[in-house]
Amino acid sequence: MQHSTLTLLGAGPGAPDLITLRGINALKTADLVLYDALVDPSLLHYCNSSCVKQYVGKRAGQHSYSQQEICEIIIRSSNHYKHIIRLKGGDAFVFGRATEEIEAAKSAGMNIEVIQGISSALAVPAAAMIPLTSRGVSQSFWVITGTTRSGQFANDLYLAAQSTATIVLLMAMNHLHEIMEIFIRHGKQSTPVAIIQEGCTPRQKIITGQVNNIADLARIKGLSNPAIIVVGKVVLNQRQIASVIDLKDAV
Amino acid sequence: MQHSTLTLLGAGPGAPDLITLRGINALKTADLVLYDALVDPSLLHYCNSSCVKQYVGKRAGQHSYSQQEICEIIIRSSNHYKHIIRLKGGDAFVFGRATEEIEAAKSAGMNIEVIQGISSALAVPAAAMIPLTSRGVSQSFWVITGTTRSGQFANDLYLAAQSTATIVLLMAMNHLHEIMEIFIRHGKQSTPVAIIQEGCTPRQKIITGQVNNIADLARIKGLSNPAIIVVGKVVLNQRQIASVIDLKDAV
Repeated sequence: MQHSTLTLLGAGPGAPDLITLRGINALKTADLVLYDALVDPSLLHYCNSSCVKQYVGKRAGQHSYSQQEICEIIIRSSNHYKHIIRLKGGDAFVFGRATEEIEAAKSAGMNIEVIQGISSALAVPAAAMIPLTSRGVSQSFWVITGTTRSGQFANDLYLAAQSTATIVLLMAMNHLHEIMEIFIRHGKQSTPVAIIQEGCTPRQKIITGQVNNIADLARIKGLSNPAIIVVGKVVLNQRQIASVIDLKDAV
Repeated sequence: MQHSTLTLLGAGPGAPDLITLRGINALKTADLVLYDALVDPSLLHYCNSSCVKQYVGKRAGQHSYSQQEICEIIIRSSNHYKHIIRLKGGDAFVFGRATEEIEAAKSAGMNIEVIQGISSALAVPAAAMIPLTSRGVSQSFWVITGTTRSGQFANDLYLAAQSTATIVLLMAMNHLHEIMEIFIRHGKQSTPVAIIQEGCTPRQKIITGQVNNIADLARIKGLSNPAIIVVGKVVLNQRQIASVIDLKDAV
């Protein structure tokens, strides 16, 4: 029997037309699609009618699939389906747990393919008109997740606060105040900050401020996860540009 | 007269099927497309036959357009074309000089739209099977360009060498030896490194090594810009995965 293939497919940041053409073409040939909560279900319309679509995300009040369960489904399915697509929000190789799923597929002797998607870490600031780099303003950007509160995270934040990089923080709203304290300790109290909640969706909300007042602004405006925090002078671009374009719910 | 619109459109990392569906739909409605050297010309087939396509990139032996000239073309064209697309390699908001072109369009009273593309900084490592983050290995990534040799660049590299981030270096091949010295000074001599030349193209070449031997390996194998350098333990994934997939020219 021919080996089956696992395609790790990044669906992009939410809007269904931000998937790639290669992604659409792959969906058309899938026999099984395992899809996440962050994926727009309308993407499944690209699949053949014979394709099996299985939801493996987390949804309030329903069964949540653990990473191990998803890996087991991949292994089990490799005997029954020729082309399995793992459809994920954003990009599979950026906070996408791709490594674990590739290991599972390898153990089942499957072929592996990766189709890149647009990472929300970059797309959400762009949708809010914030470039991550800008000539003469910022020549680098550092994307950090706040899901862990380990010492490693804190140490990297100390370095980030000393750098000239644009800092993009994911899933960090619960520690916003402490994180901004680290930037203040490094003299960055006036550095511009933007928070974008549910970016790249019709529910997008943006607030902008600076390091020493953004936590209060976020509390007053009621912003919370899922949100992306951008720290750096490039945020000023947003303020300048917002005056000439239609930014929904910009504050 | 209705205001004309400038769409900053990211074409993605090179392969023409890594553009988004939104990008394709935009090209179909363009009256003028200003396109770069890094863009696959086959993308222009999506345009109407009446659409004017103007090359504004850099090409050996021909006129190279400066950023200022491109901005002037945008301003001048705003009177004659309703929908102008600025088609760029990768993503316009990541090392894409977007800010300057938006300023120009604003000064001409144009509407501005941004359509995200997949940044080569992320897509090239992915095509080489290197995830930028991996649970338990790396929870952040820092993308840095080496086009400037300012003190700012060096200072950021000192911080990068102390961090747990995956470091992605663009256009840094000319300073590879000095950059690796900085990592060695911070005890990272054994940290894995990959260099991917012309990633996401059929000419892709990859070498992997570690901080204290990659500069020699690159010299022996003759790798040079355009290349992306990835420093971090996630590079080990590439080595593990390369054994089971078809990686062209992997060393």
